[in-house]
Amino acid sequence: MIKINENYRKLQASYLFSDIAKRVTAFQENNPDTKVIKLGIGDVTRSLPGACIQAFHGAVDEMADDTTFRGYGPEQGYEFLRSAIAKHDFQARGADISKDEIFISDGAKCDTGNIQEIFSNDAIIAIPDPVYPVYLDTNVMAGRTGDFNNGRFDGIVYLDATKENGFVPNLPEKKVDLIYLCFPNNPTGSIISKAELKKWVDYARDNKALILFDAAYEAFIRDNDLPKSIFEIESAREVAIEFRSFSKSAGFTGTRCAYTVVPQECRAFDSQGNTQRVYDLWSRRHNTKFNGVSYPVQRAAEAIYSESGKAQGAELINYYLRNADRIREVIEQLGYSYDGGEHSPYVWIDGKRDSWEFFDMLLNKAGVVCTPGAGFGTCGEGYIRISAFNSYENVDEAMSRISRHLS
Amino acid sequence: MIKINENYRKLQASYLFSDIAKRVTAFQENNPDTKVIKLGIGDVTRSLPGACIQAFHGAVDEMADDTTFRGYGPEQGYEFLRSAIAKHDFQARGADISKDEIFISDGAKCDTGNIQEIFSNDAIIAIPDPVYPVYLDTNVMAGRTGDFNNGRFDGIVYLDATKENGFVPNLPEKKVDLIYLCFPNNPTGSIISKAELKKWVDYARDNKALILFDAAYEAFIRDNDLPKSIFEIESAREVAIEFRSFSKSAGFTGTRCAYTVVPQECRAFDSQGNTQRVYDLWSRRHNTKFNGVSYPVQRAAEAIYSESGKAQGAELINYYLRNADRIREVIEQLGYSYDGGEHSPYVWIDGKRDSWEFFDMLLNKAGVVCTPGAGFGTCGEGYIRISAFNSYENVDEAMSRISRHLS
Repeated sequence: MIKINENYRKLQASYLFSDIAKRVTAFQENNPDTKVIKLGIGDVTRSLPGACIQAFHGAVDEMADDTTFRGYGPEQGYEFLRSAIAKHDFQARGADISKDEIFISDGAKCDTGNIQEIFSNDAIIAIPDPVYPVYLDTNVMAGRTGDFNNGRFDGIVYLDATKENGFVPNLPEKKVDLIYLCFPNNPTGSIISKAELKKWVDYARDNKALILFDAAYEAFIRDNDLPKSIFEIESAREVAIEFRSFSKSAGFTGTRCAYTVVPQECRAFDSQGNTQRVYDLWSRRHNTKFNGVSYPVQRAAEAIYSESGKAQGAELINYYLRNADRIREVIEQLGYSYDGGEHSPYVWIDGKRDSWEFFDMLLNKAGVVCTPGAGFGTCGEGYIRISAFNSYENVDEAMSRISRHLS
Repeated sequence: MIKINENYRKLQASYLFSDIAKRVTAFQENNPDTKVIKLGIGDVTRSLPGACIQAFHGAVDEMADDTTFRGYGPEQGYEFLRSAIAKHDFQARGADISKDEIFISDGAKCDTGNIQEIFSNDAIIAIPDPVYPVYLDTNVMAGRTGDFNNGRFDGIVYLDATKENGFVPNLPEKKVDLIYLCFPNNPTGSIISKAELKKWVDYARDNKALILFDAAYEAFIRDNDLPKSIFEIESAREVAIEFRSFSKSAGFTGTRCAYTVVPQECRAFDSQGNTQRVYDLWSRRHNTKFNGVSYPVQRAAEAIYSESGKAQGAELINYYLRNADRIREVIEQLGYSYDGGEHSPYVWIDGKRDSWEFFDMLLNKAGVVCTPGAGFGTCGEGYIRISAFNSYENVDEAMSRISRHLS
């Protein structure tokens, strides 16, 4: 008898985005003349940089000719893209990462979801709250949690991100093995300093733990002293894996390209306590279960590192950051406290009331859609997330309406 | 202390393709004037169909304009592609599959590798021998096997494909839960009749088992009476999942698009023996760990179902089948027995000697690279696989050399 993986039954149905959609539909029916402006979902809206488009077309043309056609590529990704990443994203910032330590993939969601497979099933997992739900759900599926009680899974060590700690969790009191961190954070938009991040690296070294560092939003960091990579921190190579994506840095959410960095020295342990190379495990996983990213997509991604690509990428990020500035300006004027928006496309606002109540108020008074913070974890209760991913005109109109109707 | 998934240590290092590469390099050094012809690896060599190229460019242009730009798509794949698949690949052949039962992915390797996650860890797995190694390796990683002894993993029920059974395995004597089947087969090129496939469907129904049917090579089937899909078999919807790919049917090995079919009625069981919908589990897995296939790639794949795309796809397949005919012609003349090559790009030849000995003979006498059958499992010993994926001119020259030097 073929039986199911019973761990899937522990998963909580996520009604967040369908609940939002229902409320928006109801509002629109009752207010057919109001243009609803969506600042909810974290998806880019601007076209791909011209340099990427040009390279994309060029590679499609290569696929049209037998003499330049490409079949299976290297599972780990083409050398041309890995070299560009190593040079521009790491070595240029003093982070000692080589092209062989980079694994190209089709998404940070896949990578952050799949990485747990290479570790023991009895690993004790630390996950921030609030957070992007993939870290938690994939560990539930793998059986690393107990049941769901009072909004949380038994067996997980939650790392609370609250106003009190500036939305940067404190080190865990209980000893943990595998730590998920995400900075700039989704959903809070908070950032971490090098000194704070160093504490986590030291913790991992002292406790034989490993850090999974999600840097999908690094492109939004405006202050050059803030770490874009955990590998800017001394000694991180032994205790960290980093996830990056072209989704936000180059507008690739619909084009699909990302990468994972696993340093050669990164270590875990076998049951006898002997050191094992994490690199070898991830390499084996990647080669066995993945066939590489589409060749034209890899060429499009490479183009973001050209001179014109860099300028166009920076322009794209600056466009969204200008939106974020406009959001913060109004939120500040209205007297709400918030985090994020400075080095992040997300502004995390303390609504001083129930998340859904605030959501409904924004929708009904201003015709603006945000995301209720409670959807990201228990610590998100009372907050909402406003996203800067939309046209400036829409963001400006949304914030003007909010300013008018909420003051 | 972060510990590794110790199951990875049971995996056998695969030296197959690196061993081949070493021997080829050595031969080339000693014979610098011989043009080595590679008929080893199963990778396409001809450019993408013109209809796909045109659609690919069109979609890249959409990504260049804010008004037509696409961000995150539906994880399950765009409706336009799922509809075309359901209509042309299934409904047109009388297989009752709807667009909602299709999950677009970036590769059949990912899908056949990931599918095991949704089933219980104590499932008894049946895997053909010889076979594509992903089925086995991903179950080893998940901990469903014991150690490796005498060329096989303890705990796996191997389904021998031999000359005696026409390379179509017999039903297992021991009761199994999850059955991998692949027709047309990689590496043997063998096919299965509807009557034979019906026996497997009946077995699965009688034993509450589930069939994972890999149909990645269905495009090569020339006889319309042979099943291209397991869903052409009555009652298969409850007991089967099917994997398809554009890799071989449209030359997408470097472009990356595939799909998995999970009928709504497909069932597994919970520990109490209650029926559970496999569709819901796979949907949850897909949505949680995958972000959808690149939009331009989905448009390129859709184009293979246009009138011109169908004609160009058929031409592509016929080109490789003509190569396979030339291979079979010479192998027959030389008096070797073989299977495949009729409804498959692979010809599986009984070399009447050690696989590697035959490999060396072909390389040293004719300068032709094949794949030793032993690399696909213990039942592959004594066989070699010759692939039709190359230009006709190369295949013709390779076979002329083989004809000259081996007769």
